Formats: sequence, C-alpha cells, structure tokens
Amino acid sequence: MRDLRAVVYGVGAMGSILTRLLLDKGVKIVGAVGRSPDKVGRDLGEVAGLGRKIGVAVDSDPRRALAVGADIAVVCVSSYLSTMRDHFAVCLEHGVNVITIEEETVFPWSTAPDHAAELDALAKSNGVTLAASGAQDVFWLHLVGTLLGASHKVEAVEGHCAWNVDDYGPEVATHVHVGDTPEAFERHIAEHGWPDFVVRATLEALVSELGLSATSWSSNVTPVLADEPTLCRSQNRAVPSGHLLGIVDSTEVQTAEGLHFKFSMEGRVYREGDSDTNEWRIRGEPDLHLRNEHVSYRFTTCSSIVNRIPDVIRAEPGLITLDRLGKPSYKHGALG
Amino acid sequence: MRDLRAVVYGVGAMGSILTRLLLDKGVKIVGAVGRSPDKVGRDLGEVAGLGRKIGVAVDSDPRRALAVGADIAVVCVSSYLSTMRDHFAVCLEHGVNVITIEEETVFPWSTAPDHAAELDALAKSNGVTLAASGAQDVFWLHLVGTLLGASHKVEAVEGHCAWNVDDYGPEVATHVHVGDTPEAFERHIAEHGWPDFVVRATLEALVSELGLSATSWSSNVTPVLADEPTLCRSQNRAVPSGHLLGIVDSTEVQTAEGLHFKFSMEGRVYREGDSDTNEWRIRGEPDLHLRNEHVSYRFTTCSSIVNRIPDVIRAEPGLITLDRLGKPSYKHGALG
Repeated sequence: MRDLRAVVYGVGAMGSILTRLLLDKGVKIVGAVGRSPDKVGRDLGEVAGLGRKIGVAVDSDPRRALAVGADIAVVCVSSYLSTMRDHFAVCLEHGVNVITIEEETVFPWSTAPDHAAELDALAKSNGVTLAASGAQDVFWLHLVGTLLGASHKVEAVEGHCAWNVDDYGPEVATHVHVGDTPEAFERHIAEHGWPDFVVRATLEALVSELGLSATSWSSNVTPVLADEPTLCRSQNRAVPSGHLLGIVDSTEVQTAEGLHFKFSMEGRVYREGDSDTNEWRIRGEPDLHLRNEHVSYRFTTCSSIVNRIPDVIRAEPGLITLDRLGKPSYKHGALG
Repeated sequence: MRDLRAVVYGVGAMGSILTRLLLDKGVKIVGAVGRSPDKVGRDLGEVAGLGRKIGVAVDSDPRRALAVGADIAVVCVSSYLSTMRDHFAVCLEHGVNVITIEEETVFPWSTAPDHAAELDALAKSNGVTLAASGAQDVFWLHLVGTLLGASHKVEAVEGHCAWNVDDYGPEVATHVHVGDTPEAFERHIAEHGWPDFVVRATLEALVSELGLSATSWSSNVTPVLADEPTLCRSQNRAVPSGHLLGIVDSTEVQTAEGLHFKFSMEGRVYREGDSDTNEWRIRGEPDLHLRNEHVSYRFTTCSSIVNRIPDVIRAEPGLITLDRLGKPSYKHGALG
C-alpha cells in the first residue's frame, strides 16, 4: 500500500483543519494552493498552525502545485459551483480527483446544470471523480436515508439543524446579516432574493437517493432576532436586542409520489450553552425520530471529507453526487 | 416487473404484522407455514387479523408451502441459529432466499460457527441467500456505522436501548424473568448463565463492518427492579415492588486496534409514558451522539425486514451477515 498523495487546495480555516487530519491519517501532502499574500510561499504546516514545517510551500499557481501528481485535491475555497468552476477544472484537467466542501456540488444538477454537465464531462474525459462531502453527508443525507430504512410508509420528512455563525469567521457572519435590523434584512431579500443552496442541494440528494421525482420546490429565509444584546465573537461586537443573530434557511419539496420534505437550517450567533444540533422527524407508518447533540459541524465537515477520500478515489469517473457515493464510513488508521 | 413471491414462514405476532406489510408493498404471498393447531388450515389473512381471506392456507408442512416456488421466505419462528437450522435449511434446499428476524443470524460466525458454515454452504450450493434484519439493522448497526463516518478518531462506542417486554407476549416476559425476585434471578443466572445473543451479534456486525479485529468479549446481565407495583400487561399481573421488571443485557468488546465498544439493551415492563429508545455516544475526536425517540422496535423490526427483501434477493449467495447487506433504504411503493 503506497501513501495517498493529496493537494490541499485552499488554506483558510477549513484547509488548516484538513491539513492536520490528512497528516494524522498518513496522507502525504504533496502540494498546497493559496492566494492570500500573507500565506503564499510559506510552509503549509506553519500556515495551518501545526507549529512545524512539513516541507510543502503554499503556491499561488494551482498548475504548479498539481503538476507533481496527486491522487486527490481537497478543495475548500468558496461556495457555489459557478465560483468554483475554474478551481475544479484545473484539478480535473491534471487528472486529479477532487473532494470539496463546496455545498452546491453535493447535487448541482438542478441549480447549476450547465456547470455540472461541463465538469462531469471534464472529469470523465480525464478519468477522475469530482464529489462533495461535509457534515451534510453524515447528518442530513445518510443518517436520514438510513433511518428511512425502518419506514413502511413515508408521508413527510422534516429536518432542522442549528450551526454557529461564529465558527466560520466574520465574512460568514456578514453573509447571514448578523447585526442587521430586520428592516434592512427584509429590504435586502426583497431586492436580491436568497439563493437556493446547502439546504436545497441536500434535499436534492435525498430525493434522488430515494428514487423519487420532485415536482415543486420552495425556499424561504427568515431572520432570527436577538432578545437581548448578544456578543458576536467573530465580529467582536454586540448584536443589539431586536437585530439579527442570524437566519433560518428553509427549503420544501413535494414529490410526484406524494412525499413532502422540509429542511430548515438555522445559522446564528450562539449564546452561552448553545451547541450544534440536528433533528429529523419522519411522519408516516411509523413516525420516526432522530437527534444528534454537539454535532460540531465545522469539525465534522472536515472529518467527513477525510473519511470520504478513498470512496472518491474508488468512485467511477465523473461528477458523482453525494447520494451516489455510498454509505459514509469511519476509516481507522492510515487511509489507503 | 413481475410480482415478488413470498412465503410467510411463522404466523405468530411478527408474521401477522409482516403479512400486512408485504401485501401493502405489492408482494404476492404464495405460501404460509405455521404449526399451531388453531392456525393450520386457516386462511393467512384471517390468522394475521386482516379481516379478510387472501387465498393462502396456513400449512404445517414447509416443504409443501415452499414447493410452489417463491423468491423469498420471511422466517419468524424462534431465536438462536441452532433452533432455526432446520427451518432455514428447508427453505434454502428449495432454492428460496431467506430473510429472518432471528437475531443470531445477524452475525453468527463466532457464537454458532458450525451452523453458520453449514448454512452458508447450503445457501451457496442452492444459489440463494440467507440473511437477517430487524430493528438492529437501522438502529444499532447502520445508523451507528453512518455516524462513525463523521469521526476522525474513535476511542469508544457506547449504545443503550430500551424495549418494551409487553410488546412481545407472555413468553418473552417469562424469558426475561419479569416478576421474579432478584434472588431467584441471580440463582438462575448462576446455574444456567445467560447466552450471548442480540447484543453480541450486533456488535460483531459493527466490528466487522469497521474492519476491526475483536480481541476480547464480555457480557453480563443485570436485573431492573420495580420501585412500585407495576402492571405487566402481557402476563396480566402486577409485578410487586422489588421484583424484576426486566433485565439489562450488556456486551463489551475490545479490539486489537484499541477501540472499545459497549452496547446495553434494557428489556422491561414499561410504565405509563415510557417508549422505546436508542442512544449512542462515540468518544474520540470529536465526541458524537445520536438518539432516537419512539423507536417502536416491534414494528420497525417488521418494516426493516420488508425493506430489505430486494437487497437479500440481489445479494450474492450464501449466509450474508448484516454488515455485508449494504445500507438499509426505504422502498416506496411496490417492492420489486
């Protein structure tokens, strides 16, 4: 068994956690791609906060980093397939499999069909796989799909999760309008809308895995307001009472077979004692329920990605949606 | 797509629920096997409490029932592979796949290796599959295995479930010593021991699925005592304070890789408001947690069995342990 060779593509907060986890699992990191001037040229071990060098410099040129040859690129740069298209393409063109935390890639065929088709063809022509994972893999797709294996007749599937905005830095807090007044938030939504995204892609994968046909989708976003002044740690300021702590992003889908799915994702600044949760209820015969406490979505996004690497390398070429990657599993010891 | 053809082998409480669920899913029931004189010769629909005939008489001779040809026998007669050997063998000899609620069949290679080897060979030589499912499939094996897909490093896995003794009739209540004094119970255990069973087989499958090697097993059974007089509905009598409401059956396993597993199954007479539960904690990086409320183990054992039928028919020939059946899944509409 030879070492798995990986390129860490994107060296922000998630790329840093991933660097440590990959090394823990015996993966040989052969390249690193970054763009921030204060990171380019430095050793990845130092950039990732390991406190030691690992002999890999952060390179601003993905072509150079990929040219050394790798089994997989672990890509964590940004969200939306349209934004990530060039980053994925360069990996695939170099014959390198891609696993990414980019959320739309979980199931992009409805929301970004042109990019999906192009990248699928590119992956196939290079004999490699493009796939996404993250906390949704275990917690919102496969735990739910597995639980449904105990259902005789499903009428509705409803999920709710909560994640801590402060786990992801000040940009994410701004993105979910932390600190805005409800009026400013509503004006923004009225003008710009709110894109279908993580919640939609997850439900797309779930509906696909069950072999059902979606007939209608609807999404909405609602504000979560502070009922007392609350510290936003990532922005280092207090959110006044009555202003936004975050949002609830909801998507519903109806299927031709008569099943209804709804998933709500609540991203907000946490108060003392709050922790990430995941809860699903299935209505039907019988009613079923599942709850996870202390999910640590930020960390489990990274650990899920690492456990998926062998599955992605083994998968057939193309863009493989998360419902087609098989059951997630724990890989003890070195990956290979 | 032609109808799936099934023989219901065992027409007690579980076989009756299964009869309804199979018909709901468009399965054609072509035979039924029973032994109770008050059931043999009667129509399965009436025996199963459907209130209508379905044109299949309960037959005391499994050979006659199986001779009509079927894709699968749904076998729910009794527990332990040694007890069930002849029932499974007659199905396999007739070229009929078997799915069973018999709990040891989940993973019998350590506790009943000779019977397992014989039935595996018999299934292979007849080109059919023998496999078990039930509530352990979703709740104790695959939900846990899926959750572990979010683990970076696992140190220990601990599960606890509770099931209602009164859901399974007076024999089961007697089997778990409901109403005994603690002294009588301890005497019985000292004389007869307590067989490794459901808990052991489930952990065997989990350890196997993770590719780990068990180095030591230990099991124990402890009484659950009534702290007030409590009605045992299945026996229609009150359990006096201080006497047994049931038992907790626990098994622990240590693996060569340093992981520790413990699973405890609490079977007792329920008090008002109690319901079946399932809870697992994983210690490691990160700590993880999962809980299901209102599990309805009796019903979900039956619904899991029905959802597994296409998987068993598709599986390779032989005795296929539950870790090798793949992820459980919901089958909407008619099976096929």
